[in-house]
Amino acid sequence: MSLTDGDLSRVAVLAHEKFPDRAKTATGIMRYADYEVAAVLDRDRAGERVADHLNGVSDAPIVESMTEVGDVDALIIGIAPIGGGFDESWRPDVRNALERGIDVIAGLHYFLSEDEEFVDLAAEHGAELVDVRKPDPDLTVSQGVADEIEADVVLTVGTDCSAGKMTTTLELVEAARDRGVDAGFVPTGQTGIMIAGWGNPIDRVVSDFTAGAVEEMLVEKGDEHDVLFVEGQGSIVHPAYSAVTCGILHGSMPDRMVLCHVAGREAIHGYEDTAIPAVETYVDLYEDLARPVHDGEVVAGSINTKGLDSDAAAREAVESYADALGGPATDPIRFDADEIVEALL
Amino acid sequence: MSLTDGDLSRVAVLAHEKFPDRAKTATGIMRYADYEVAAVLDRDRAGERVADHLNGVSDAPIVESMTEVGDVDALIIGIAPIGGGFDESWRPDVRNALERGIDVIAGLHYFLSEDEEFVDLAAEHGAELVDVRKPDPDLTVSQGVADEIEADVVLTVGTDCSAGKMTTTLELVEAARDRGVDAGFVPTGQTGIMIAGWGNPIDRVVSDFTAGAVEEMLVEKGDEHDVLFVEGQGSIVHPAYSAVTCGILHGSMPDRMVLCHVAGREAIHGYEDTAIPAVETYVDLYEDLARPVHDGEVVAGSINTKGLDSDAAAREAVESYADALGGPATDPIRFDADEIVEALL
Repeated sequence: MSLTDGDLSRVAVLAHEKFPDRAKTATGIMRYADYEVAAVLDRDRAGERVADHLNGVSDAPIVESMTEVGDVDALIIGIAPIGGGFDESWRPDVRNALERGIDVIAGLHYFLSEDEEFVDLAAEHGAELVDVRKPDPDLTVSQGVADEIEADVVLTVGTDCSAGKMTTTLELVEAARDRGVDAGFVPTGQTGIMIAGWGNPIDRVVSDFTAGAVEEMLVEKGDEHDVLFVEGQGSIVHPAYSAVTCGILHGSMPDRMVLCHVAGREAIHGYEDTAIPAVETYVDLYEDLARPVHDGEVVAGSINTKGLDSDAAAREAVESYADALGGPATDPIRFDADEIVEALL
Repeated sequence: MSLTDGDLSRVAVLAHEKFPDRAKTATGIMRYADYEVAAVLDRDRAGERVADHLNGVSDAPIVESMTEVGDVDALIIGIAPIGGGFDESWRPDVRNALERGIDVIAGLHYFLSEDEEFVDLAAEHGAELVDVRKPDPDLTVSQGVADEIEADVVLTVGTDCSAGKMTTTLELVEAARDRGVDAGFVPTGQTGIMIAGWGNPIDRVVSDFTAGAVEEMLVEKGDEHDVLFVEGQGSIVHPAYSAVTCGILHGSMPDRMVLCHVAGREAIHGYEDTAIPAVETYVDLYEDLARPVHDGEVVAGSINTKGLDSDAAAREAVESYADALGGPATDPIRFDADEIVEALL
């Protein structure tokens, strides 16, 4: 289930013309991945440094092309154009990597592993092409055994998509590790998979295998950590994506859940006719739906307050969210994850 | 979305060595499809008649092979071996059909459309190969618009898999039509699709498109009928298949639901550690989960009593189910669908 046959320890990240603000995968990797980013490829910022743009991450040079990058384990495509296509201006960088035997990892709709030139080069030079949106063909239905693993399971759930579930999950893993807890991250989406270096893209698997694809990851990692933090997807009342949410809920059998919300959001994003129900309704829905398969409780909340200008307004939003939830809540990005971690551990 | 480019009006059904008891797709087609079955292929019963084995369906000859079948629109593979493979003993029949320009429809894991000989023959003779488990590549995410269609939507939901959702749905369509209601059937699984002659195999689509694949069917048929009866799948608390159930619930936005149950079943089939919750719990879960997307009510119950020997015991099971449900219930196969249809219309 690893992305590549070898361990990822040093990578280059391609983010041409988009670093850092429109390169969420690239910046997510720099912020959360365990492996080192040796260089960022952005022809518009060649000669600058990562530290000129981002705080709190390891510095690295920004370069024009792959030819300026030394030995790395992989080149990761850290941006995605609208539509998920492959931008032909990236071809020389991918070609250069493959010719040096360096694996290339992408999360595009366009599969590198179906590009004839790349397939030939990879075969010739012993490199791997990894498309993280392409599910493992061996996935199958859930056996209903995620509750048999040793680790406790924490799942982030949401009131909507893009509510900060991946970021919250990663912040919780870091905060738990800071407290000496052996915490593991279980990714379910493409950016999470690139950060973790392994994982199943749950939203791309055959619908019958949704729960099974989550369970398979928990079973594999269940004895390696004391607590597994599973990245949630979507929302249980999302008109389009609730199936994925429900499959993750029953496939992962969480012991505890963290409900993620965006301050001020009143309707499902992109589905403005669908009002976001009360926080209490979500708590009931997630717990009631989980119970017949495995008892799990919503114990804390994560609220994304980036739309609020002042810390005072953010504090107010956090408090009112905590009140509605009847438990501790915070914005783990704006403030820190302490209150949530304390409720979980 | 039709299975073939032309209308299906006369077909042959392949059921070698399994007709009728181990040929559920074949018998489902004979019982419910609008098109005529001109012949059944079963080399073990060649020379017999369908009427020797089944009541309440149109009679047809049982023949040795496709060579004895006259002109038909399609040959349907009406059986599936464990594992869903293609039995090589069927090859001469499929070959014969294709050589005569007759389409071949199958619901196997093995795709006829990836069999080199069949692909060549189909191209040469202008026949189509239809694999109903192969989802349309144009499916995409739900737009959340199933509630904008003209027809009322009725969805069968279940306490478990194999609880009789497809059969109940088809019985309800027939009973509604008998009352002069313009009722349409919306299939979501392979047998339902073969019976209807069109449809999306919801359990095989990409998980992100689960709701969208249902919605697409409702939007296409929404103005053609007054009531659409959507075939449900799985159960909302099934450890493996709840994702599909949830996607169908939110993608179809039912106005009314019929809860299907098997008399005496106490645990999820194949997941014996997972007890089947109280009927009231299911009613609450389906209604509470539907509400934020579209209000829908569980108005009646269908209970499968085939495991009970006497009609008296069955009547008792029906009554106790109706009591738990707080609404009308019946076994539409053992008795008839009247009570449910009256509650729905």
